Amino acid sequence: MNIQRGAFIVFEGGEGAGKSTQVARLAASLRASGYEVVVTREPGGTAGAEAIRELVLDPEYSGLNPRAEALLFAAARAEHVSALIEPALASGKIVICDRFVDSSVAYQGLGRDLGAERIRELSHWATGGLLPDLTLILDIDPTVGLARAGQVNAAPDRMESENLGFHEMVRSAFLMAANEHPRRYLVIEADQSPDVIANSIATATTSLLG
Amino acid sequence: MNIQRGAFIVFEGGEGAGKSTQVARLAASLRASGYEVVVTREPGGTAGAEAIRELVLDPEYSGLNPRAEALLFAAARAEHVSALIEPALASGKIVICDRFVDSSVAYQGLGRDLGAERIRELSHWATGGLLPDLTLILDIDPTVGLARAGQVNAAPDRMESENLGFHEMVRSAFLMAANEHPRRYLVIEADQSPDVIANSIATATTSLLG
Repeated sequence: MNIQRGAFIVFEGGEGAGKSTQVARLAASLRASGYEVVVTREPGGTAGAEAIRELVLDPEYSGLNPRAEALLFAAARAEHVSALIEPALASGKIVICDRFVDSSVAYQGLGRDLGAERIRELSHWATGGLLPDLTLILDIDPTVGLARAGQVNAAPDRMESENLGFHEMVRSAFLMAANEHPRRYLVIEADQSPDVIANSIATATTSLLG
Repeated sequence: MNIQRGAFIVFEGGEGAGKSTQVARLAASLRASGYEVVVTREPGGTAGAEAIRELVLDPEYSGLNPRAEALLFAAARAEHVSALIEPALASGKIVICDRFVDSSVAYQGLGRDLGAERIRELSHWATGGLLPDLTLILDIDPTVGLARAGQVNAAPDRMESENLGFHEMVRSAFLMAANEHPRRYLVIEADQSPDVIANSIATATTSLLG
């Protein structure tokens, strides 16, 4: 690993795929190995981006135009990258981010029919072209994932309440991205035990950082 | 005028050009002639868009990344167009809007050096391609306009506090847009008396609607 610049690791996956658990485990394991780790998430991650996140997820604005929503996510990302991710990478830290560009492509581009390429282009401009060094896709059947998410969240947010077809489209968008760039992606079956999943992730990150 | 679809009239101009006064006068005059008129402004115009506007203009986020800022303005515009402007035009009303795409091109594209074409493209996607039928540019020397604005606003907002070079660049961006599309634009010298300005505007709108 080039210590001049850190590494950017992203977790992607549908609702109930267990991203939060694995983000926390990977961060703990990397810290135990002596790495400086920054854990963050999208949408959000900085004060400005969190304010935008709150606006997008606020049920009061649930009728928000899909293009407006996509532009808000892109705005939050631009702020997140410039204020937090880029500076951390520049100082040699490892940044672990829960969701990034592929979530926008999946949820807004395909799920809301705005066009995957248009959304990817928008994000590309917002981030100044920053790409993750490794994206870990926690892949799960939406019926399983949504049932899991339902057990965890008493009050499901707007994203979780969308219908099943939407979530199936989102899943295939993640798999499509991984399929196009196999060297920068790892797809992990998320219905395995948390330990098995954590081991797969450890192997991939060791190979990235080693 | 095609009564199946209304008309979309936009006012543009720097700080202190007197847009608010002329927007109100034109609306009153068109209403007196029997037109249904909707007066609105950017950024803002609907609940969702106003929430975004507040976020952009909040001094707490004054360090917001310029791309994030541009994306937020585009998001507010997408919401404003789809929730308010398009429905009003579809029902045959005249929409008068204080600032629109050219303000983004001027303030974010040139003023903040993001590229005029990139910002125009972003807006084009946000609005689904909607263009004003007539744009009225109230043109004023920034030193005169800023002095005027200073007299009116005890606490100038962030946009008004930017430096003079910025405002000169903004002014030339408006004039450039008008120069490229003379049939859809009218440039009015805004250091004339309000009555003279109102007369020029009345002539132009009568010709548009007649």
